[in-house]
Amino acid sequence: METFFSFLEKRVDDCSSLLCVGLDPHVSDLAEPTAAGALTFCLNLVKQTAPYAAAFKPNAAFFEQLGAEGWAALKQVIEAVQEESHKRGSLIPVILDAKRGDISSTAEAYAKSAFETLGAHCITLSPYLGKDSIDPFIQNSEKGVFLLCKTSNPGAGDLQDVILESGEPLHVYVAKLAQSWNTKNNIGLVVGATQPEALIRVRAAVPAMWLLAPGVGAQGGELESALKAGLRKDGKGMLLPISRGISRAKNPALAAAELRDQLLEIKEKIWRKGESPL
Amino acid sequence: METFFSFLEKRVDDCSSLLCVGLDPHVSDLAEPTAAGALTFCLNLVKQTAPYAAAFKPNAAFFEQLGAEGWAALKQVIEAVQEESHKRGSLIPVILDAKRGDISSTAEAYAKSAFETLGAHCITLSPYLGKDSIDPFIQNSEKGVFLLCKTSNPGAGDLQDVILESGEPLHVYVAKLAQSWNTKNNIGLVVGATQPEALIRVRAAVPAMWLLAPGVGAQGGELESALKAGLRKDGKGMLLPISRGISRAKNPALAAAELRDQLLEIKEKIWRKGESPL
Repeated sequence: METFFSFLEKRVDDCSSLLCVGLDPHVSDLAEPTAAGALTFCLNLVKQTAPYAAAFKPNAAFFEQLGAEGWAALKQVIEAVQEESHKRGSLIPVILDAKRGDISSTAEAYAKSAFETLGAHCITLSPYLGKDSIDPFIQNSEKGVFLLCKTSNPGAGDLQDVILESGEPLHVYVAKLAQSWNTKNNIGLVVGATQPEALIRVRAAVPAMWLLAPGVGAQGGELESALKAGLRKDGKGMLLPISRGISRAKNPALAAAELRDQLLEIKEKIWRKGESPL
Repeated sequence: METFFSFLEKRVDDCSSLLCVGLDPHVSDLAEPTAAGALTFCLNLVKQTAPYAAAFKPNAAFFEQLGAEGWAALKQVIEAVQEESHKRGSLIPVILDAKRGDISSTAEAYAKSAFETLGAHCITLSPYLGKDSIDPFIQNSEKGVFLLCKTSNPGAGDLQDVILESGEPLHVYVAKLAQSWNTKNNIGLVVGATQPEALIRVRAAVPAMWLLAPGVGAQGGELESALKAGLRKDGKGMLLPISRGISRAKNPALAAAELRDQLLEIKEKIWRKGESPL
């Protein structure tokens, strides 16, 4: 069965990369603060970094704040990734970072919006509304979701670290729930890369799932401890999204190439030393 | 200090209504399955039901699935509500049902999208990412949020009913957290009206907060037990969103008027009997 993660793993092999290039058109980073400016900014990033990107992750909010034109730009950005995929003969998945979460026919409408109207392959979702709020997004195994588990912001612990009757923190419970729902190999988890302890706990609870681990910059130290904590035994299972570390570099292509190589090097080192916690 | 809920209470008084009219342009309900069809559908609803609406609640998903044009239609729908407000000399708040939830600059972009680009007064949000994910939306006391607490879908309990170390279910913990964050009178909670026991628990935990209580149709019995469970002592504190019960009626104006009156009647009855749990 073809699944979202079988596509992603193919792409990871094709480009030897665990790098997910974030497409976050912050208004302050644009040549002009308009949808046209956001489009130019993202198309340039896509073109420059496509050889090194295991996936692209456009952030819906930065397009949404530009209104209908921003929404049109988002669609064009996703189409540009699809063109790069065709050109390279290697499907580069698009993960729409939208953190949606709603019920019944509303969830169906969001799934239609992400996968049909926009043409993304995967979407980030909140788990707070439970299994039936996820169902419309995972019916088709070729489309995937990353569920929020443990985020990297200061207030993440307000809910995610609450201790349950069972003695485990909520984020570990969420990870196990998501694992039990993942019968089609198309559910992953968002776990901030800035807290290696959380990554270790989640990886221990869900040995096989893919983790989307945001929050690290281009600092080797942070990357190394994150990879050590979260990589699967096969050296996959973890996608590192980086946005400003690439988009604000003088040469985004070079920055992406270096990050790809850095990730590879750290992975090799962990393997050599047998340092992976698994 | 003017706050979102002081505006809402003023409107509740102006129209003697606790009815929140849902603007959910389901494609299957439209004369044509396009953004233009959604716009016509919603403008008609706004015009017909404005006299009886304490608030309007457009659901972002149904516009989003129609792409950039859907997003433009959403903006026009919100402008139509603003025009009705001006015409009536009574501000009818627009609650954007979007269930967003993200961090730092992304949360700021969503807040800008909802309150500035679209012109809504309030938005529904997920609490899963904690306090700092809510902050950009509540800085301005005149703008408000309803945080998801206990939803009405079958899988709501997957996370929301999990029992914490303290012995209380997660949704009660979320209600208390939200109450502690509500220093500017602009945070409310989403609690499904279909589970009166949950409404009673939440109301006991947060005696003064506003609840957005979806899930009831036009059945008097359901409405009565929901209002009994969730109304504040002052006969306010609860907004009942109804969508299809109005939009699919032969005469939406009449359906909204009858619902408004039914809510008033039940409220009076509860008061007479002293049946409110508070």
